[in-house]
Amino acid sequence: MSAAVLTIGTELMRGEIVDTNAAWLAAELSAVGFRVTRKLCVDDDHERIQAALAALGAEHDLFVCTGGLGPTTDDITAECVARFLEVPLERDAPSLARIRERIVRAGRSPTASNDKQADFPRGARVLPNERGTAPGFAVEVGRARAFFLPGVPTEMEAMFSIHVVPALAGLPHDPAAQVVLRTFGLPESGVNDLLAGIETRFRVTLGYRARFPEVDVKVFARRDDGASAERAARKAADAAREALGSAVFAEGDVGYPEALGRLLVERGVTLGLAESCTGGLLAELLTRAPGSSRFFLGSLVTYANEAKQAVLQVPPALLERYGAVSEEVARSMAEGARRVLRADYALAVTGIAGPGGGSDDKPVGLVHYALAGEMTTARQRIFSGTRIQVRRRAAYAALALLREHLLGEPPA
Amino acid sequence: MSAAVLTIGTELMRGEIVDTNAAWLAAELSAVGFRVTRKLCVDDDHERIQAALAALGAEHDLFVCTGGLGPTTDDITAECVARFLEVPLERDAPSLARIRERIVRAGRSPTASNDKQADFPRGARVLPNERGTAPGFAVEVGRARAFFLPGVPTEMEAMFSIHVVPALAGLPHDPAAQVVLRTFGLPESGVNDLLAGIETRFRVTLGYRARFPEVDVKVFARRDDGASAERAARKAADAAREALGSAVFAEGDVGYPEALGRLLVERGVTLGLAESCTGGLLAELLTRAPGSSRFFLGSLVTYANEAKQAVLQVPPALLERYGAVSEEVARSMAEGARRVLRADYALAVTGIAGPGGGSDDKPVGLVHYALAGEMTTARQRIFSGTRIQVRRRAAYAALALLREHLLGEPPA
Repeated sequence: MSAAVLTIGTELMRGEIVDTNAAWLAAELSAVGFRVTRKLCVDDDHERIQAALAALGAEHDLFVCTGGLGPTTDDITAECVARFLEVPLERDAPSLARIRERIVRAGRSPTASNDKQADFPRGARVLPNERGTAPGFAVEVGRARAFFLPGVPTEMEAMFSIHVVPALAGLPHDPAAQVVLRTFGLPESGVNDLLAGIETRFRVTLGYRARFPEVDVKVFARRDDGASAERAARKAADAAREALGSAVFAEGDVGYPEALGRLLVERGVTLGLAESCTGGLLAELLTRAPGSSRFFLGSLVTYANEAKQAVLQVPPALLERYGAVSEEVARSMAEGARRVLRADYALAVTGIAGPGGGSDDKPVGLVHYALAGEMTTARQRIFSGTRIQVRRRAAYAALALLREHLLGEPPA
Repeated sequence: MSAAVLTIGTELMRGEIVDTNAAWLAAELSAVGFRVTRKLCVDDDHERIQAALAALGAEHDLFVCTGGLGPTTDDITAECVARFLEVPLERDAPSLARIRERIVRAGRSPTASNDKQADFPRGARVLPNERGTAPGFAVEVGRARAFFLPGVPTEMEAMFSIHVVPALAGLPHDPAAQVVLRTFGLPESGVNDLLAGIETRFRVTLGYRARFPEVDVKVFARRDDGASAERAARKAADAAREALGSAVFAEGDVGYPEALGRLLVERGVTLGLAESCTGGLLAELLTRAPGSSRFFLGSLVTYANEAKQAVLQVPPALLERYGAVSEEVARSMAEGARRVLRADYALAVTGIAGPGGGSDDKPVGLVHYALAGEMTTARQRIFSGTRIQVRRRAAYAALALLREHLLGEPPA
């Protein structure tokens, strides 16, 4: 069963709106076992909408379309479907009554534009909309079962669950299962190289998604029944984990900072930070997930040298002698944060995020970072990329230093 | 000139990723005067990619394609284009050298997977990538000029500006001009309501883009010549600015935090922060743009009450009596940060970001924030939304309080 998604709207063509409906529908259709192979988006144009219906009806078993069901003159989806099917539009009395009632309830007067929303191609099954005025409809287009839903996401999503999902249950589809491995420490190409052969050996497909600087690996299996799909995905994921070693930090919906936070909570230890070039990013990453107050005490973001002295008690002589971006200052910042915040561990980051501020000695991208616990460990790296990228890489490098210490293993 | 956008990637088909590249390209192509009438997205499949090339090459004058240029086995765009054009793939020596150099510089070893990225269809013009390993290329596909770019947004966007925009300049297109107004403080529907009538009065189109919690308004004009288009867009933008009042904080490529930073630099004053529920986000927003060290001294992110006492000198009695989320503590935090960091101004934010931690008295979303200067001002709000949204709204509310103070105007 091959599925497609069609979204209609001139506003989508000008890039004014990111097409979240298409992504949402693709995810939902995939999750219930359909293979989505095409997403098409066209503007509010009779000819192009009909060409899209022809193409999707010829090549897919199923498609879901959103948009163009509103009251305005550029909402022409129902009319285009009727023309394509060579049937007249017919007004649906129950829909008309519901639309008018809804508008009156909102304190407005129904107009001819609103009435138009009750017109459907003859033979279509009307799909009521509990959240808005625009009903949807279902028809056959070519060989495809086609569902037409309004473009407003909350309305569309509710109608998909209420009307489309039950209708799909009767269609043949392949049970599928997936496992998502979360990795950090390898570039996407490195992850791919280590997983060579897994797809053919286990008859699964691997998908990669970079969430800079993390890389997700999605292990996706289709089989004749759900249980076999689950087993196949699990076996392949286990082999992938073995190949990737410590680069895999979690499975499923958890980011690297959150996984580290969980580890800290498990160990019952607290963390404080001293940040310079990351400018609060490290703290923001660690506190994004709920529950971070169980391990996170605070971050002393000290951009100015005076702040490093006043808040972190970094000795002025150290700053003068080695400069703010130095191993010595990174160590002193980490130890200062640990002391001031009374934390079990403290991480410090100081560097040159760029684009300016570099020198021959200390180029843009140079970052010193340190972990203070019972002892203090320092590292340095030169990161490439934009200011935003250098900051993210630096924040992750510091997190990795702590993870490595807690797990007693070298970073990937 | 009819233009289209093609995005390639199985991950886009499963809805794992929202297709922001397609929206970005549609917006950019529209902005330089092309009429985008189709966006198509297909999975990493030889047959469907070639079918897409055939369809777009037959019906459009121009298309831009992203994705499938990476080093992994599912990156097959160049191969598909070569097969479609019935030409061999040829390795480009300068590209190969650049790719290998880039990888070695990053401290890794080039592999066969990386080398593959230097293969292009014979006759293609190679488009170098300054930000990543994957070069792009330009060829003719059917009647269309076609540009193939990598899927990583930062790389794709830079390459579009460097390689595609100049190549398009020679093609016939309708002169167009646009002005982007950056707003904060009104919901998208509120912005839309205030701008009713502008489109017909000035013969322009308005586009909206939500960058939560900011809303951009794109004022877009097409005329017979470039100068007329510029004038029309400017006049309409001026009318829109008047309608929107102080909600407009800038024009063009500058966010709300950065605009505030520029204002602080202009005034020659410094800023310090005390953050609790925003967890470093406020500092991160202010330091994202280069040059922030000219006004930003630091942020004391104090998640734990002990940290509020130790770092910000918040009296324990205040915390006990009013609780950490209170006007009194917000004021004390702001005054503490101003004192400790020796800043001209300090902002403090304390609240309940959720999803847990709320009570009848202090519900999730309650945020107290304060500005300390020569005097201290405090505000409170109850924000709705997810944890991430409450944090962003709280950070922006604090920034707005300072902006209002500096400009002597009430927030929109």
